[in-house]
Amino acid sequence: MSIPIPKGFRLAVASAGFKKPGRTDLALAVSDVPASSAGVFTTNLFQAAPVVVGKDILSRRTTARAVLINTGQANACTGNKGLDNCQATMTLVSAAAKLDPGDILPASTGVVGAQLKMDLWEKAAPIVAANLGTASIEDFAAAIMTTDAFPKYAGETLELGGGRVILAGVVKGAGMISPNMATMLSMVLCDAAVDPEGWRAMFGRAVELTFNRATVDGDTSTNDTLYGLANGASGVKVVGKDLEALEAVLIRVLADLAYRLVEDGEGATKVMHISVTGAASDKDAAVAARAVGHSPLVKTAMYGKDANWGRIICALGRSGVDFNPDDVDVALCNVDLFKSGQPTGLNFDALLKEPLEQRDLHIGISLGAGPGKYTLLASDLTPSYVSINANYRS
Amino acid sequence: MSIPIPKGFRLAVASAGFKKPGRTDLALAVSDVPASSAGVFTTNLFQAAPVVVGKDILSRRTTARAVLINTGQANACTGNKGLDNCQATMTLVSAAAKLDPGDILPASTGVVGAQLKMDLWEKAAPIVAANLGTASIEDFAAAIMTTDAFPKYAGETLELGGGRVILAGVVKGAGMISPNMATMLSMVLCDAAVDPEGWRAMFGRAVELTFNRATVDGDTSTNDTLYGLANGASGVKVVGKDLEALEAVLIRVLADLAYRLVEDGEGATKVMHISVTGAASDKDAAVAARAVGHSPLVKTAMYGKDANWGRIICALGRSGVDFNPDDVDVALCNVDLFKSGQPTGLNFDALLKEPLEQRDLHIGISLGAGPGKYTLLASDLTPSYVSINANYRS
Repeated sequence: MSIPIPKGFRLAVASAGFKKPGRTDLALAVSDVPASSAGVFTTNLFQAAPVVVGKDILSRRTTARAVLINTGQANACTGNKGLDNCQATMTLVSAAAKLDPGDILPASTGVVGAQLKMDLWEKAAPIVAANLGTASIEDFAAAIMTTDAFPKYAGETLELGGGRVILAGVVKGAGMISPNMATMLSMVLCDAAVDPEGWRAMFGRAVELTFNRATVDGDTSTNDTLYGLANGASGVKVVGKDLEALEAVLIRVLADLAYRLVEDGEGATKVMHISVTGAASDKDAAVAARAVGHSPLVKTAMYGKDANWGRIICALGRSGVDFNPDDVDVALCNVDLFKSGQPTGLNFDALLKEPLEQRDLHIGISLGAGPGKYTLLASDLTPSYVSINANYRS
Repeated sequence: MSIPIPKGFRLAVASAGFKKPGRTDLALAVSDVPASSAGVFTTNLFQAAPVVVGKDILSRRTTARAVLINTGQANACTGNKGLDNCQATMTLVSAAAKLDPGDILPASTGVVGAQLKMDLWEKAAPIVAANLGTASIEDFAAAIMTTDAFPKYAGETLELGGGRVILAGVVKGAGMISPNMATMLSMVLCDAAVDPEGWRAMFGRAVELTFNRATVDGDTSTNDTLYGLANGASGVKVVGKDLEALEAVLIRVLADLAYRLVEDGEGATKVMHISVTGAASDKDAAVAARAVGHSPLVKTAMYGKDANWGRIICALGRSGVDFNPDDVDVALCNVDLFKSGQPTGLNFDALLKEPLEQRDLHIGISLGAGPGKYTLLASDLTPSYVSINANYRS
């Protein structure tokens, strides 16, 4: 599937040698004109240099022209030198691409603690600038991968405000989240004209409904970053009701990317769709869903194609959320395993033999305690997860 | 290592056929006289029938004479029939062993949701009663195992109050283990005479310092139970200052058992001793230690003998505990990895090559935010963990 680049953006990738020789590891997206800019960042107390720099830029300016992403070094836990190096990369690339350094939103991923290899940056900056306009969305997505098994991107073209708008996004991340692989980076480009305030507001809401509801291993990295640029090059100005339509598309694209993150979770073979209803509050539903989605016992059972409802109810019962055990129902792939606090006695092994072969497993949980609900995407836990992460640095 | 049975107790095991033919799966400990009784139970909202029954007995009586444990079926999520069956097993065994049914404290472990196999209980009750006095502490510990790789027991003999007192404990559990009691059954027998109130109080404190600070997978089961019986058969009455001496021994024995739980964590090759100091409070220190001890990325790094401080600081930074990242220090096996928010730059791979081969890995974390401290024992995450749990029921 090839997806179009929104108008007025040029993309470039380069092989700077940050990671393995020959693979692309530097990506640049440039808008012809200043674009409304949005950013969502990691909540980890340890924040990588590009996160600190990117947040600072967005706090001072409402527009930006470029997103610059490297893989190989996360530039996290690198102190003042890391901040200086981040600024230096922006200076190098802006000079080569004829931008202002403050126009660039930076993001990095890779091993934490190591300083950026500035000699490689000096060589690569003119190359990536010269390559502008030659890369596709797919190329960009591939250049920012770390342990990802495949490049992840999504996009939509929609009729809006009497014109045509393109929105395209990329994401990388497989250990959704680990400092060493510094995890989730994402960029969304759109050629609509959107007021910066409205553009930023829709990112906050959309992330809460998408990326924040996806988990591989429960860890949150030092580098997590999502940037959004809307440059107006389509000639379509999005206001009023149309903002809702654009936000709906943004949510669909981010949901698609979030699904791909979990699908490509390190070693993952399954995507659990954990839907909790009937909690006392949405917050309780989220806590319960996460207890199930992070439980290594549930994750290994799903990998083992085992309809092990006992592990699901065990995770619910120790989640800290309040409910009456006698009111709890659990269904797996739409087969009722557990009703009103007891197993239903159905022949799960026979009924679920086929469904458990699928990649997507729906776990429906009802707590009978109120109107709260939440849905979480979570990967399974496999021998490959362990070997990928036990041998990451070697 | 053989450890003595406290005076005035007789132990028995039997092969009831609850699990595999030929292996022991039923264990009974009987005191000649009523003994001060204590119990600590799971905090999971789902509570197995024997947990409900055991709590009820302890709420009505201060003494008991026997502990009865089966493996094979957990008798959890079994409704009223499960409660009736639990009572029926106590009636069967008490009749055979000439006890009052209310003298027996019950515990079960195994697959949840299945009803007890009462026909097997009927055959086994006279056998286990007839075997009283023939089993050792080791035999008892072996008869209650599920996925445990080895039987776990500990004991001490101490001079106290002018006499000699024996305290002996057993525990089972390898998975579904996390702070707040685990899939864990444990029994402690002591031949001192201890006032029931004092006996119970020391169990609460000792469990908080031992079992509640051990984790394998962060899950807390429906059946977790610890029973303690002190029968006075040694002729030694423990009062005043001697209570503290006995409590110190109890803590040592439970700490020994807790270590064995983690050592025998499903698939585990390592025991992490995660020591957090400098947190704003002890509670914060506990939250931070658990974030590290439950992180699959830290667990796989330790399995992989990888001095991956990035994953440790990442877990701290997203734990929800407040601190200044620039004040954080991390040491592994007494080698400083990270000081004041940055890597120390030591050659970790060389310095830690030997230490990381050891089973016991000390992770020292200082947050620089206050006087709070906490130590947690946690296992690593290995391919064997996944295969054990993916294939548990098959």
